[in-house]
Amino acid sequence: MSAKDHPLLPFFDPQSVAVIGASSDADKLGGRVIRFMLKAGYRGKIFPINRKAGNVQGLRCYASLADVPQQVDQAVIIVPASAAQEALQACIDHGIKHVQILSSGFAEEDDIGRQRQETLARMAREHGVRLIGPNCLGIVSVPNRYFATFSTALEALSPQPGGISFATQSGAFGSCAYAQAIQRGLGIARIVATGNEADVDVAQCIDFLASDPETRVICGAIEGCRSGDVLRRALLRASAAGKAVVLMKVGTSSRGQLAAATHTGAIAGNDRVFDTVVRECGAWRARTIEEMLDIAYLCTQLPAPRNSSAGILTVSGGIGVLMTDDAERHGIAIPGIPAPLQDQVHDLVPFAIGDNPLDTTAQISAIPGGIAGLARLMLAQTEWSTLCIYLAQIPCDERRFPPLLEDLGKLRAEYPDRLIVLVGPHSERMRVALEEQGMVIFSDPGRAIAALGAACAMAERRNCLHDTLRDKDTVRGIRQASGRALPALPDAPLDEFQAKQILARYGLPVLAERLCTCAEDAVLAAQEIGFPVVAKIVSPEIRHKTEIGGVMLNLADAGAVREAYATLQARARAHDEKATLSGVLISPMIEPGTETILGVHMDPLFGPMIMFGMGGISVELFEDVAFASAPLTERRAYQLIESIKGYKLLKGWRGQPALDTGLLVKALIGLSELACDWREALVSIDVNPFVLKHDTAVCLDALIVTRKPPAALASRDTACMATSSC
Amino acid sequence: MSAKDHPLLPFFDPQSVAVIGASSDADKLGGRVIRFMLKAGYRGKIFPINRKAGNVQGLRCYASLADVPQQVDQAVIIVPASAAQEALQACIDHGIKHVQILSSGFAEEDDIGRQRQETLARMAREHGVRLIGPNCLGIVSVPNRYFATFSTALEALSPQPGGISFATQSGAFGSCAYAQAIQRGLGIARIVATGNEADVDVAQCIDFLASDPETRVICGAIEGCRSGDVLRRALLRASAAGKAVVLMKVGTSSRGQLAAATHTGAIAGNDRVFDTVVRECGAWRARTIEEMLDIAYLCTQLPAPRNSSAGILTVSGGIGVLMTDDAERHGIAIPGIPAPLQDQVHDLVPFAIGDNPLDTTAQISAIPGGIAGLARLMLAQTEWSTLCIYLAQIPCDERRFPPLLEDLGKLRAEYPDRLIVLVGPHSERMRVALEEQGMVIFSDPGRAIAALGAACAMAERRNCLHDTLRDKDTVRGIRQASGRALPALPDAPLDEFQAKQILARYGLPVLAERLCTCAEDAVLAAQEIGFPVVAKIVSPEIRHKTEIGGVMLNLADAGAVREAYATLQARARAHDEKATLSGVLISPMIEPGTETILGVHMDPLFGPMIMFGMGGISVELFEDVAFASAPLTERRAYQLIESIKGYKLLKGWRGQPALDTGLLVKALIGLSELACDWREALVSIDVNPFVLKHDTAVCLDALIVTRKPPAALASRDTACMATSSC
Repeated sequence: MSAKDHPLLPFFDPQSVAVIGASSDADKLGGRVIRFMLKAGYRGKIFPINRKAGNVQGLRCYASLADVPQQVDQAVIIVPASAAQEALQACIDHGIKHVQILSSGFAEEDDIGRQRQETLARMAREHGVRLIGPNCLGIVSVPNRYFATFSTALEALSPQPGGISFATQSGAFGSCAYAQAIQRGLGIARIVATGNEADVDVAQCIDFLASDPETRVICGAIEGCRSGDVLRRALLRASAAGKAVVLMKVGTSSRGQLAAATHTGAIAGNDRVFDTVVRECGAWRARTIEEMLDIAYLCTQLPAPRNSSAGILTVSGGIGVLMTDDAERHGIAIPGIPAPLQDQVHDLVPFAIGDNPLDTTAQISAIPGGIAGLARLMLAQTEWSTLCIYLAQIPCDERRFPPLLEDLGKLRAEYPDRLIVLVGPHSERMRVALEEQGMVIFSDPGRAIAALGAACAMAERRNCLHDTLRDKDTVRGIRQASGRALPALPDAPLDEFQAKQILARYGLPVLAERLCTCAEDAVLAAQEIGFPVVAKIVSPEIRHKTEIGGVMLNLADAGAVREAYATLQARARAHDEKATLSGVLISPMIEPGTETILGVHMDPLFGPMIMFGMGGISVELFEDVAFASAPLTERRAYQLIESIKGYKLLKGWRGQPALDTGLLVKALIGLSELACDWREALVSIDVNPFVLKHDTAVCLDALIVTRKPPAALASRDTACMATSSC
Repeated sequence: MSAKDHPLLPFFDPQSVAVIGASSDADKLGGRVIRFMLKAGYRGKIFPINRKAGNVQGLRCYASLADVPQQVDQAVIIVPASAAQEALQACIDHGIKHVQILSSGFAEEDDIGRQRQETLARMAREHGVRLIGPNCLGIVSVPNRYFATFSTALEALSPQPGGISFATQSGAFGSCAYAQAIQRGLGIARIVATGNEADVDVAQCIDFLASDPETRVICGAIEGCRSGDVLRRALLRASAAGKAVVLMKVGTSSRGQLAAATHTGAIAGNDRVFDTVVRECGAWRARTIEEMLDIAYLCTQLPAPRNSSAGILTVSGGIGVLMTDDAERHGIAIPGIPAPLQDQVHDLVPFAIGDNPLDTTAQISAIPGGIAGLARLMLAQTEWSTLCIYLAQIPCDERRFPPLLEDLGKLRAEYPDRLIVLVGPHSERMRVALEEQGMVIFSDPGRAIAALGAACAMAERRNCLHDTLRDKDTVRGIRQASGRALPALPDAPLDEFQAKQILARYGLPVLAERLCTCAEDAVLAAQEIGFPVVAKIVSPEIRHKTEIGGVMLNLADAGAVREAYATLQARARAHDEKATLSGVLISPMIEPGTETILGVHMDPLFGPMIMFGMGGISVELFEDVAFASAPLTERRAYQLIESIKGYKLLKGWRGQPALDTGLLVKALIGLSELACDWREALVSIDVNPFVLKHDTAVCLDALIVTRKPPAALASRDTACMATSSC
């Protein structure tokens, strides 16, 4: 969708606006909005609306919207909550399709407020009106000077035009972020705070910004999110447009996080899912506002890095080494320079030290044009996307800096496909001069490298993204063609045996084992399977069998099996006399192998997430697991497996032969299909352990937790539609 | 040692200085130093020295030091390297005891330079002269305006007086750090860059700053370090004086790190030892210059936090939640508020939300004095050391801020034992006004919380420190009394059997096992021990026995032992036909237990470090180990064990009974004693695995790597003396 067709564009680019609840008192909320727009020089027409009519801050004020003699594009409502419904009705009557409600006193306050908000939302929906708010801080759109907000941040600060846009739910968070941005002189395009989100939410705003030609970088803050799919689609759209999206999530601390039934659920709960989605969609998650702004600043300069290799040129050795240390921590490669380049470097600056980082030493001041000359050599002879130059105090030096600026400007023009990041203390004026030439400058070397690391990571993620999107289409095609019928869901919770039967239908390998409901049947099963066997108690209510002695290994003969049957029954009863006992499972003894854990977490927001980890302490102690959204492609399944530290255990640990990761991929894709089909019914799945050995694999134990009572399963088509946006 | 007795004080506080190599050209190095001192208003007397004599920048210039008619406190030498020796001789002849050599062209350049530097160092030593430099950036001492440096950072920037001091080796690093500090308006006491460190090094400077009443916070950057003991002592002295020390280490990336013979050595190599020492000495290691300066800024305000609990008061909910998220990541507790306080809060501000963080909401502007009132309630009713207040844009508001400033100032005075950290965009003027009242303010909430986290951690470390120091004295006393004779060291590398014998002498439990040099002896040993037994090849050259099949388990009878003997010999020969075979070790089979790894890394700088980790993948995959300096106290040994993630495996993992960590403590202390005794001979030790089971423990395998050829062992007393400073 192009920007001019985007349904939210009129919020940011109205030709005229009615301010309902306008005030002559420029300090009151209804007066401040008008004052800010007048001060900013809004290019459209403002129609103050107030029962008193007359004149408001030099503008003709109308007693009601009905009196306004022309069609108006947008309304901003700043009346008491009790009067908001009437105001919105007036907008509807006047044919206004875009309304901001800045007033508070709605769902954030009490039940009456909640009802009021629902009424407004319903009215808007019924009349095709889009709403931002209520209880929001409104919109700032810098290109057309539309400052429809009462944020006190604009009292003292005035945003410069530029390419960074902000979409936040909380006005407070937003104004903290953009106040910092304005204070450091970052150029801003659009700001929107969505407040209670009766209609438009942050994800939809990001979707608009993705198409907005004024916006180069999107900063977002998410508190709640209504639709994971809308957010995903918006992030993917921004990535496809080559725009960096830097997101923060507020409210991640452990307080209030709930215990979950499976490992997968417990680990996913600690907001790993959000991380996964952000990464998969090519965006970056920042932890502090300053980190967000640093990355946004760096990404306002094009081009985005094509690779993660960088050169470091420094007028001072120590800082070059520090930046190299930082680069390693932030995933940036600092490769050595090619031999011919080394010769050219020393021809130009005989006293230069090292290769990359290349230290000009302070003596470089004796060679006019020396810094830019070395920079040019480094760019000409390499494919590094980025060159970082530490300039020490030169950008503070009124004599030395202007010629260097000119040199660097030329260099920039010669290499438009590279990113040039400068570091050193500098004045405001020098910063602006550099930015005009397409470069960025940071005071702190560590912050420069951290921001570059994020930009490189996003570029890499965006590269993977295109492949993944293509693959996913393929996968969806295959799935739709397979026509597999969904297994019937039992009415009650699932036990291990039922869980394994379902896994088997999705191609996961299980043992030839039998559920027995009397001791003699167990003996018969053991004889068929062949001694020695394993006996396990099976009950949907007993999830941690081992801990109650519910698994008995190495049963060598009929007598042992018979005895085990009785013992297991007794132990289960002793543990929980009300538990439903499905019976005793008789399985073959298998030799130990390498244990992994496969899982599904049905995220309420982002849908099915597939988890992979090595078993045992890797998961329980070190949380060495990774997540990926379902449906999973083969490529993504391999990436998932390779992304954990424990991957080393699969690739020939301590001289042992490597295990067949293809078996894991197949199982993970089966689990992903299961998760998509069962999307409506599932809570989570643990396949733990999933044991690999030479060229075989098997689910040794499995736990499937469904909603209680199990919901009716959605049809295949619905399930597929629901995930088609991933 | 008080500051006025400190041998380095005269460098920072000279009454008079001779500048040897003074220049009339204020831009040349020898002119710039004089220009900076004149501009800064140095309070002592400057004697320019230059063959041409006459007048230098308005000061009388002397042709030689001999012509100066009075005793001079300090000399600054800025002559070509070839003339430095003569200049130093002149200082010696004149009786100057403190000399800075700023000139370059010494060890940093070539062998001739190195020899020149050694000559200067020897001359200084012989005549009791202390040297800073050569090839250094010199000293800035703000209280007496002594700016003896040619750093270009001072061209445009002028430091404000304050409590932060900098000691770095690299002048470039130092000037980058203090240029940033000056730009953000931090108050500075002393700056010193030690360059080539022919005599005085950074550690000695930190030692001086620890005693310096002008210095409240010490920022240091270490590249190389000559003496770990001197650094430790300096850090401990600073901690004892309640001063925060924030250190950076330059050069940590993996390039060029060497492979090491043991796990312990390999893991220690990745600069964990430095982390350990910094932590043990109560200091903080920063990763970026900005992080260092943020912490320094926060720590300039007293008091240091007594505990890690903080209250968060915010005028905007979203930022309060963000700060709470950050606090969790940075180890700061945000406890709930007591019930009576909740009532008082709501009496004062009925619309306040939450408890901690406490959200005043934007409506607080309607209650004059409301913010300070809530802050006062929070401080009065709790023991939290710190109160963080997010003020949004209020500090930019010329009308709202002055009354708030006054309120907060009063509050500050009422609670001198608490730290008040403010957050919000602010003007320079507001910042200064707040600092004058004893508060700090940050723009970015994330940076405020990160800096506070470091301050809290340092305070906690300093609390432990006093205990540890006391314990160490006790331990040393016990060790000196024990009078244990050192075992004789063999001339050749040690094999497993020898290693275990040595460990046993230090009280580490080993198996009753026998080294056999013929098959029949092996059978005899097995019969004595009792079948089944284990047979292992023993050779100092074969370190990874398992991987060559050099360990055979579960040998059930004499025949099996005889066969194993032959097989092991053959495998060893096949692996390395030149290896010295000590024989075959016959050991009892023991049941599996919980595997841990104990280790010693003899750090070239910091001496013996003790390592502890859980065995297997915990170490090899996740590097879940911790280090502590030897000698180890019992308390420190317990801390060491408890500090790894795998500690959970010892404390009753998955319903199993807890293991006896006292056995681990005993073994670790034995290892620590061994490491201290063998300080001169040892490279590293792995006891891997050290197996715990119920209430027993045993070293199952051990590797001791000594210097090659083994150095003569130091006597006990020397070993004790060498560690007495730890």
